[in-house]
Amino acid sequence: MQTMEKRLSVHVSTPYDVVICRGALQNLGAYIRNVHKGTSLMVVTDSHVEKWYLEEAAASLRAAGYRVETFVFPAGEESKCAKTYLALLNALAEKGLTRTDLIVALGGGVVGDMAGFAAATYLRGIPYVQIPTTLLSMVDSSVGGKTAIDLPAGKNLCGAFYQPALVLCDPDVLATLPEDVFCAGCAEVIKYGFIGDRALLESILHMPIRQQPEEIIFRSVAMKRDIVQKDERDTGLRQLLNFGHTFGHAIEKLSKYTLSHGQAVAMGMDMMCKAAVRRGFCDAQVTDLMEKLLRAYGLEQKVPFSAADIYRTALQDKKRDAECVALVIPVRPGTCELKKVSVSDLLFFAEEGLKA
Amino acid sequence: MQTMEKRLSVHVSTPYDVVICRGALQNLGAYIRNVHKGTSLMVVTDSHVEKWYLEEAAASLRAAGYRVETFVFPAGEESKCAKTYLALLNALAEKGLTRTDLIVALGGGVVGDMAGFAAATYLRGIPYVQIPTTLLSMVDSSVGGKTAIDLPAGKNLCGAFYQPALVLCDPDVLATLPEDVFCAGCAEVIKYGFIGDRALLESILHMPIRQQPEEIIFRSVAMKRDIVQKDERDTGLRQLLNFGHTFGHAIEKLSKYTLSHGQAVAMGMDMMCKAAVRRGFCDAQVTDLMEKLLRAYGLEQKVPFSAADIYRTALQDKKRDAECVALVIPVRPGTCELKKVSVSDLLFFAEEGLKA
Repeated sequence: MQTMEKRLSVHVSTPYDVVICRGALQNLGAYIRNVHKGTSLMVVTDSHVEKWYLEEAAASLRAAGYRVETFVFPAGEESKCAKTYLALLNALAEKGLTRTDLIVALGGGVVGDMAGFAAATYLRGIPYVQIPTTLLSMVDSSVGGKTAIDLPAGKNLCGAFYQPALVLCDPDVLATLPEDVFCAGCAEVIKYGFIGDRALLESILHMPIRQQPEEIIFRSVAMKRDIVQKDERDTGLRQLLNFGHTFGHAIEKLSKYTLSHGQAVAMGMDMMCKAAVRRGFCDAQVTDLMEKLLRAYGLEQKVPFSAADIYRTALQDKKRDAECVALVIPVRPGTCELKKVSVSDLLFFAEEGLKA
Repeated sequence: MQTMEKRLSVHVSTPYDVVICRGALQNLGAYIRNVHKGTSLMVVTDSHVEKWYLEEAAASLRAAGYRVETFVFPAGEESKCAKTYLALLNALAEKGLTRTDLIVALGGGVVGDMAGFAAATYLRGIPYVQIPTTLLSMVDSSVGGKTAIDLPAGKNLCGAFYQPALVLCDPDVLATLPEDVFCAGCAEVIKYGFIGDRALLESILHMPIRQQPEEIIFRSVAMKRDIVQKDERDTGLRQLLNFGHTFGHAIEKLSKYTLSHGQAVAMGMDMMCKAAVRRGFCDAQVTDLMEKLLRAYGLEQKVPFSAADIYRTALQDKKRDAECVALVIPVRPGTCELKKVSVSDLLFFAEEGLKA
């Protein structure tokens, strides 16, 4: 097991490691023993992941000597709400977990966000370990410390910056991931490549991510880690990670979340590349490469909304008195830059992004 | 105004000042302008404080150029719950407050805890200013960064460590405080004296706190500040602040919160002094001084519960597999020490504390 393991250290306010290792889930108990001396833990997961992996995870944890409690909620973004959060807090209290016990988040982004926020706030913070089970959560939420729940008024409006004690990625679990969910994660990988790793783009163009998941997860996490370490609280540089997200979030919202985050971000990146070429920020090889990659990973769907609608929805996310927005603009494959544009100019970017 | 102002700097992860100044509330807008450049703010208060001070505070804030939103909830500990917290979060979202806006907590401990936790978690953290309006919240919650709400399973089970941008204490507002609420704050002042400031004890024995509030608030906050700065996350030294709280919390709980926190802590301190004398940790002058002070501030009520009940309830607060508990023991007036005692010995402490 140890020989195949890849490990990255994340040096934020509370440092921790991201471990990438096939079959790690079977050895979960041993991994957690290394970072946590307590006696009890609560495994939080959703109804999808429960069926595939909860038993195996719990067995390994019990074998390592832990008292294992579980909390399972219905799969889906609708569960990332105050109701589930409070039910989880009450379960933690009822089972008597203390500040020296541990939460284990076993699942995708919804599980990680929810369990992470509960860990950040139960007894004003108890340790937690993340076991992401989707490609997206492995490459995205495993670094950054962002935890949150949704409010009626919008997504992720309530949360905390809170770092896990360990993130354990087992690429073997990707085998049970539905193809569209896998592809949503590929969109984030493509994003990392465009932001700062041209070789990653070449690599995933010539060999499918499915055939080299450890390497791709490792490089994506490393890229995000390098950016987050320089801007833990998301006040500057970290905005680079929003490549494709200004329009992507708007598209996701307009679709009433029937489009996945990954598919919407793919559309947002494609729009931003096209607009950047038209503005002369980069040449056409950027759009060519983007479109080749989106096709290769089943993400080439046409944007089903107008520029005006996307513009209006994107602006709702911004501060009402803002005059400028920061856009992440590709300047060549593997390099993006932050540029401030006026709010009114954003509409033209959306229009240019939608032109064939 | 400036000449009468006392100011303490609190050097924690995010440093801030505690300002103590008569009449400060009338100049609230100017004080906040010094620490906050944003445009909008939400004043959070309860139905009691609203009647006395909301209009004055809001007027001063508007005069300083802020857009002022308000959120008022029914006074009382029952409001420190998930329902009020979520209603506040939704109000913040509906009014469009952003990460560069501000929450102003105007009120006692419940308001501060609730508004502070909302500030800690809305958009993963926005700045907040505390205007404590009770003696207890001025000397206790103004330093420490503890925010929380109650869960059905217990008090303060959900919260965060989060530091305000400024704490502004206006002793003039204490004039409208009911006598029993004022006295509850006196119990905490007595606690600070016993932990580390003998001269403070002499001072409040010879001149009522009502006649010298600035000085007493200043010295109490300074004491707590010095301890918290050395142990922000409450993992060691800060336990000294729990003098009287092991039994005090139990008594408060047994009374179903009909006894105030201050009255219960007064009983807990008295018990601990008596037990300490019987164990030979200190001599009888400690109990003499404690009882003189409790009488002087109307806190000399007899404990209405048995040692066995107090012991059992105190243990519920502890880790179930703990074999020891840390007690804060007075060794002379103005000096306490942390001592570990076995769980079984705790019962004898309770019994000795209740003997006449």
